[in-house]
Amino acid sequence: MQKKTYQFTAKKVDYYFDADFSYLARLIDKEHTVLVTDENIFQAQAKKFKGWHTIVLKPGEQHKVQATANSVIEQLIARGADRKTVLVGIGGGVITDLTGYVAAVYMRGLRVGFVPTTVLAMVDASIGGKNGIDVGVYKNLVGTIRQPDFLLYDYSFLKSLPETEWINGFAEIIKHSCIKDAPLFRELEKNKLKYYQKDKAALGKLIRRNAVIKSTVVEKDEFEQGERRLLNFGHTLGHAIENMYALSHGQAISIGMVAACSISAQLVKFKDSEKVIKVLAQYGLPVHTDFDRKKAFDILKMDKKREKKEMNYVLLEKIGKGVVKSIPMVQLEKIISNL
Amino acid sequence: MQKKTYQFTAKKVDYYFDADFSYLARLIDKEHTVLVTDENIFQAQAKKFKGWHTIVLKPGEQHKVQATANSVIEQLIARGADRKTVLVGIGGGVITDLTGYVAAVYMRGLRVGFVPTTVLAMVDASIGGKNGIDVGVYKNLVGTIRQPDFLLYDYSFLKSLPETEWINGFAEIIKHSCIKDAPLFRELEKNKLKYYQKDKAALGKLIRRNAVIKSTVVEKDEFEQGERRLLNFGHTLGHAIENMYALSHGQAISIGMVAACSISAQLVKFKDSEKVIKVLAQYGLPVHTDFDRKKAFDILKMDKKREKKEMNYVLLEKIGKGVVKSIPMVQLEKIISNL
Repeated sequence: MQKKTYQFTAKKVDYYFDADFSYLARLIDKEHTVLVTDENIFQAQAKKFKGWHTIVLKPGEQHKVQATANSVIEQLIARGADRKTVLVGIGGGVITDLTGYVAAVYMRGLRVGFVPTTVLAMVDASIGGKNGIDVGVYKNLVGTIRQPDFLLYDYSFLKSLPETEWINGFAEIIKHSCIKDAPLFRELEKNKLKYYQKDKAALGKLIRRNAVIKSTVVEKDEFEQGERRLLNFGHTLGHAIENMYALSHGQAISIGMVAACSISAQLVKFKDSEKVIKVLAQYGLPVHTDFDRKKAFDILKMDKKREKKEMNYVLLEKIGKGVVKSIPMVQLEKIISNL
Repeated sequence: MQKKTYQFTAKKVDYYFDADFSYLARLIDKEHTVLVTDENIFQAQAKKFKGWHTIVLKPGEQHKVQATANSVIEQLIARGADRKTVLVGIGGGVITDLTGYVAAVYMRGLRVGFVPTTVLAMVDASIGGKNGIDVGVYKNLVGTIRQPDFLLYDYSFLKSLPETEWINGFAEIIKHSCIKDAPLFRELEKNKLKYYQKDKAALGKLIRRNAVIKSTVVEKDEFEQGERRLLNFGHTLGHAIENMYALSHGQAISIGMVAACSISAQLVKFKDSEKVIKVLAQYGLPVHTDFDRKKAFDILKMDKKREKKEMNYVLLEKIGKGVVKSIPMVQLEKIISNL
């Protein structure tokens, strides 16, 4: 196990990489902890949950809504959870987002930890303190920014991870390489998903490298005034079409990244769209851009990154260098309709 | 108008005392602001709202629930509210708590200001950043601590304030005097509600003095690790019986203060219970303690101030000096059943 600590604005967060789930019992007091997970994980990893108070939710993004948060809150009340209770979200982004959100508002804030169980949650969703729920078609419209107390990485959860979820996670890994890490992009170009699935050491190194990229960005700009916005590469359009077409997050942002590359070529002379498209396809991600432009733009207008009549859009100047451009909504509407 | 600024952990808050509502237009941009108020205020003060985007809610504590927050969120979406939108809660504690809560979670946080329109909101509820909603019988079980950007005090709202609401507010004023300000307690002993209702200058001074007491306590201890707990005097039992008997907040904490005086006499030799009871009665507040002990204790067990097997209870050593005592729940159960 390797421990690493990041200092955010109001809190330091401990990361336990390459750890065993059982280590959780050394971090927190079983009696005053409630685990939150979903049915899939609970069934696949039943042994791990023995002896822990656990709330088990239905799996899937469609349950990342206020009604589920209400249900968790009612179960916490029924269990007599108080301010000293610690919540631990064990799952993918849906579980960690929802658990972080409930922890932020229950009795005005409980301590919370995460055990990410998907590649996507390990490299992205569980890091950085953003939590939340969806409202209708709007992803993460409600939530807070509040750091967890710890993150525990147990790669054994990945053994039961479906192929589609692996692909999902690599969308965020490719994103990180595009905006921040050209050498990582070249590594990804050389390999395939199978390589990381088979080589435990390479996978551990890759996950940690990506967790570090994200954590370093967030450490510099927790409340997204500048640098952190880069992490939204592919996400503006991605979020708009994700619920529209019931895409996985990875699929949605892959299409979003392809679109952002095309916009980058138009506005900041980005030349390597083809390379990005090739890597995305190589890791099983969709690269087409046939979606309902008008409908997507209508949803995109409500994106949190819009500020009055402009949208902060993340573009690439070159591979490894993302930039934020403020694009007037009228111009953006035209660009998207012509994609 | 007098401006005063308090510096809290993450934010400074501007207080505009003795201001006119119209000053709001100089603080914020009308086009990107949404006011939140209730039907009573909206009808009584229709002129003030002209030209402002306004969300009007049903009045009353029974609407301080997640369903109302959901409805506000949906109306914000429908109005295209984005991260640059400012919310302003105009009302009593129900409105400022709910508006503060929605502002804390909508798009992970909007700027928010309050225009308290009741004595209680002016001296207490709108100050200190605590926001939230009730869940079933549990008051403020869900919420956050997040400071508003500004508070604007326009005493003209008090002209239409019902007598019961005046009494409500004086419960918190008496509370402040008990825990922090013996000279204020003596001033209150000498006067009656009518005096403050008739003398605008005396009222303005009283409200400001109380706003300062609360703000100073919160400034020292925003996240309630010590000093801020004193503000819960009368509130532990008060919250338990408030929804149980559909009492007003002032009535509930008045009974809670009487009980806390009695516990103070038992545990820290407080000698002036009679004086406190006399002042409460003098301002029209109930001082009996006939309530269902068992049921009240069952609700009280879920109070946010409980920590595992102990409750942080606020007692009085003398008038003007509150103290926090950790009382084991088993002992507290006995004390309450014998009140």
